[in-house]
Amino acid sequence: MPIDNQAEIEITSFAWVPEFARGFVRDLRPRWACEEAGLSYRQRLIGFETAKSEDYRREQPFGQVPAYRDNEVQMFESGATVFRIGQRSERLMPRDPAGQARVLTWVTAALNSVEPFVFDLVNIDLFNKGEAWTVERRPQVIDTLRGRLTALSDWLGDKDYLEGEFTAADIIMGTVLREIDDKDLMAEFPALVAYRDRCVARPAFQRAIQAQLESFAAEPVAA
Amino acid sequence: MPIDNQAEIEITSFAWVPEFARGFVRDLRPRWACEEAGLSYRQRLIGFETAKSEDYRREQPFGQVPAYRDNEVQMFESGATVFRIGQRSERLMPRDPAGQARVLTWVTAALNSVEPFVFDLVNIDLFNKGEAWTVERRPQVIDTLRGRLTALSDWLGDKDYLEGEFTAADIIMGTVLREIDDKDLMAEFPALVAYRDRCVARPAFQRAIQAQLESFAAEPVAA
Repeated sequence: MPIDNQAEIEITSFAWVPEFARGFVRDLRPRWACEEAGLSYRQRLIGFETAKSEDYRREQPFGQVPAYRDNEVQMFESGATVFRIGQRSERLMPRDPAGQARVLTWVTAALNSVEPFVFDLVNIDLFNKGEAWTVERRPQVIDTLRGRLTALSDWLGDKDYLEGEFTAADIIMGTVLREIDDKDLMAEFPALVAYRDRCVARPAFQRAIQAQLESFAAEPVAA
Repeated sequence: MPIDNQAEIEITSFAWVPEFARGFVRDLRPRWACEEAGLSYRQRLIGFETAKSEDYRREQPFGQVPAYRDNEVQMFESGATVFRIGQRSERLMPRDPAGQARVLTWVTAALNSVEPFVFDLVNIDLFNKGEAWTVERRPQVIDTLRGRLTALSDWLGDKDYLEGEFTAADIIMGTVLREIDDKDLMAEFPALVAYRDRCVARPAFQRAIQAQLESFAAEPVAA
């Protein structure tokens, strides 16, 4: 298990979140990357009050998690941290510039060409559930997301992972696809369902999500 | 001017887009990065039919622009291409890992923590204008976006750019802020208005947008 209080890599996550968010908080991504790379990390657990503080905003200006540091860099944004961890391990990224450019391309595609359209659906089905506007809007959101998933599925074809071998990009794309809760929509894309399932079946993912779930306190943590 | 048909860097963009999109198509980002870095690029102009083709989808699976190649890598996603160009020029990115991690962090923040909320507003005010659902939804979208802009403005403080000196990250964040057309909302954030204006006043930006605008044919191009 790579959680180690003496580790050089520090990943900041929440000490408590509501039930529906457990297993989906974004520190899952760098945790998973560390597990794949075999790199130890220490976890720093914070409450929502700390997340709002001026001090923490200097580390993570949006008051979110994860924040990340290692002996060389200090950063935030789960996508960026996964790329950083990937730079340190060839289990997550080829060593040549061409291969690294492909990984960066797909990390970015997951974050900017797929996830925003997943956010749209999550807003409708979870955060704004039952509001009148969602009735008219939902079919539009599904159509747009379907277009993105069609493109992604066509790209994937019969490959196991986005670039053939598993890379850091699959950590981001796999976690993005996990955020889609509409089983009917996903059922239109058996190749993507198989890809998502292949991602989450990896022992490193299982260890990462277990570590996140175990980190939560039973009751809300203020500090 | 860095457009040069013999250049090693190739940026693919559309030969024609509707009036409202001119100056906002995302090949603007790598064009701007090349202008800042003083790197020449050749432009490859394609029509919407080509963008939909199987051949092009192998380069850009979502059928969008830009696609990018140089003598070492082949990639897509404007955010990723700007980071790639940044790796080749210290005018766009510090040479040390800590500085590069900061640039990657802010590129990612612009793409995943700010732009999705700008997309929401653009959908309401441009692509779905006048639809009934937008009346109920718009105030929510404004509130969320306001939260992100507040965090961004607080971070920026009295710095000229996100990390003090201009970097590749300002190309992404500057172009994201340009997509916000609500002047009342932006007026709440004078530091961000000044930052956005500082970005677009750069001669390299001006050359890049000029090059994009000049690239469009007068009439739709099929191929």
